[in-house]
This record gives sequence, C-alpha cells and structure tokens, in this order.
Amino acid sequence: MAKGKTTRSMIVRSALREASSQGLEGISIGALAKKLDMSKSGLFAHFGSKDGLQKAVLELGAELFVAKVVRPATTKERGLPRVVALFDNWLEWTDSEVVPGGCLFMSSTFELDDRPGLARDVLAVTMREFRNTLARAAAIAVEEGHFRTDLDLAQFAFQMHAILLAHQVEARLFRSPDASDIARKAFESLLSTATP
Amino acid sequence: MAKGKTTRSMIVRSALREASSQGLEGISIGALAKKLDMSKSGLFAHFGSKDGLQKAVLELGAELFVAKVVRPATTKERGLPRVVALFDNWLEWTDSEVVPGGCLFMSSTFELDDRPGLARDVLAVTMREFRNTLARAAAIAVEEGHFRTDLDLAQFAFQMHAILLAHQVEARLFRSPDASDIARKAFESLLSTATP
Repeated sequence: MAKGKTTRSMIVRSALREASSQGLEGISIGALAKKLDMSKSGLFAHFGSKDGLQKAVLELGAELFVAKVVRPATTKERGLPRVVALFDNWLEWTDSEVVPGGCLFMSSTFELDDRPGLARDVLAVTMREFRNTLARAAAIAVEEGHFRTDLDLAQFAFQMHAILLAHQVEARLFRSPDASDIARKAFESLLSTATP
Repeated sequence: MAKGKTTRSMIVRSALREASSQGLEGISIGALAKKLDMSKSGLFAHFGSKDGLQKAVLELGAELFVAKVVRPATTKERGLPRVVALFDNWLEWTDSEVVPGGCLFMSSTFELDDRPGLARDVLAVTMREFRNTLARAAAIAVEEGHFRTDLDLAQFAFQMHAILLAHQVEARLFRSPDASDIARKAFESLLSTATP
C-alpha cells in the first residue's frame, strides 16, 4: 500500500513536469511509463482514466502552489506586505523547478476552457480559489488601512491575475529578459490605484 | 490552380475553427479530412507538414484579426478613440464566429511557448506586432494630448494585453456573464493612469 502510494506520487510528479510544458492533454502515458520503467497498463491502473491522471496532476500542482506561493505569504505582516508577497511568490513560482514549462494553471486554463470534463471542473474550482486568496489578502489590506475602503476586491484580484498572465507571455513567448521588471511596474501601478 | 487555392483556404478556415477550441496541436488531420471529404494525404499535400498547416492557420488568424480588430479601429478619430476601439474590437473578436473556442492567439501562446518550431516563431512575431499596434495607438494618443507625455508605451501595451488575457479566463474558464464589464472596468482604470 505504501509502495503503491509512493509510485503513484512519483508518476504524478513526473506528469506535472511534462504537463507544464506540453499541456495536460500532452501528457503521454507511453512516454511516462518508459521514463519510469513501468508498463502502460501498470501506470494507468493508478488513475483509472486520463481524466483521473489530469485531476491528480492539477491537485498536486495546487498543493505545491499553496506551499510555495500562498503559505509563505501568510507569514508576512497583514495587509500590503502579504499582497506583495503573493505577487512575488507567484512570479517566482512560474520560474520554479516543479513547473519547468511555466505555470501549470495558466497553460491549463487556455487548454481546457473548451474541454468539458473532470479536469476542467477541478481547474475552475482551483483557479477561483486562487482568485479568492488574492481578494482576501486585499480585504485584509483594506482593514489595515493600506488600501482604500471602497476598493472592489474581486476587481483587484482580476487585475493582479491579469498582470501575472501577461508576465507569462512576456517571459515565455517573448523571452524578454526584463519580463519581471515589466510585471512589477504594472503591479506598482495597480497598487497605486488601490491605496487611499 | 484556382481550385487548389480555394480548397487550401477552406481547409485552413476549418482548421482555424478547430484550433481555437482544441489548440494548434489539437488539429486532427484525420478529422479535418473526414469533415471536408478528402483523403488525409490529399489534405496534407497542401501544406507539406503539420508545422506548415499550423503556420497557415496562424497567418489566416492574423489576417482576420487585422480585418476585425485593427483596421476598423483606424477609421476612428486619432488618439483615445482608437485605443478604446482596439480594446472593444479585441473583446468582440474573442466572441466572434471565426474563433468559436476563443482567441486563437491567446491559447496558442500558452500552448506553443515551450514548443520550438515554425509555428512558435510565426506566433511570436505576430504577437509582437499586435503589441506594437497597441503601443503605436497609445503614441498617437500622447501626440493628441489624450495621454500624458511621459507614458511608457510598451508598458501601456503590456497592461492592455494583460486585461484581455484575464478577460478570456473570466469569460471562458469561469463563464462569468459579466466578464466584459469586469474587463472594461479594468481598462478604464488603466486609462485613468495614462491620462494627463
């Protein structure tokens, strides 16, 4: 049982790395099995379906995202410092080892938006949760007096997410060496519209 | 010769519709051939390679984008009205018939960023050109006194593009009925940072 769990976790980690560059639909069971020296049917048995594997990849991605982006931000002071930490950590996440092909959630968003199914449902719930995390951080910044009291929190979260999406284009499609600077400048401009 | 051109164009239009929802890598030569009542080899002969077909799809997409988004904006008054028209037309484009699965360029960006090749090269040049179009429109708005003279044009174009990316997430992943309103509100906030 413990061995089964370890194998499953190894498969999902490997699939996550592949999905970050080739997309969730680009995960090749054959290539994964070969890489992990398993049979295709043996590998598949851990998930039951392609959807099951994609769901497991998204769930591991969300777990790592929370560990690397969300949780470290909560150790910062309440208010603006946490909002800034969420932004900085998210930028770092898109360059991290666990997603060598960039943010799994951004590529999956554009890949799955027209593919109804389990993976799309998991993704939509996860992304909504990330947006809510940004909005909650902004709400605390309002409480602390760092942001103006009439700030539209969902709107702020949308605009913060927008900058992170465009950063990915800048960094990964255009390969701009100053992608982070451009994103940070946009974020500062957004912050300036949110402060009292 | 004329017949060959018509057939080719019909294939590319059909492939563009499919790519908008299934991705450029999701174009199935088999499904396309069946739909158009052709042999797979007969269809393939028009492009030589999968890369060739993807390139043709991106080129047709760019042509339609210019016809629907860029050119109508140039009939507006110089300055702010043109910037606003580019934004409005781009929003409409993502809902248009020719790309039933949403903006081809956004999904392709996240799909191809890690896939070196002809299609990626064409996409990067095309996207850079769209960004430049936004920056040039902003430059004219500066000349007309609608935007402040120290506006960073490339930065403005980045932020405008960011909102359009996030709109796609809002509309297509979250299926928010008020996606356009949220995007417009973000755009108005961006405009407010650009005005003198």
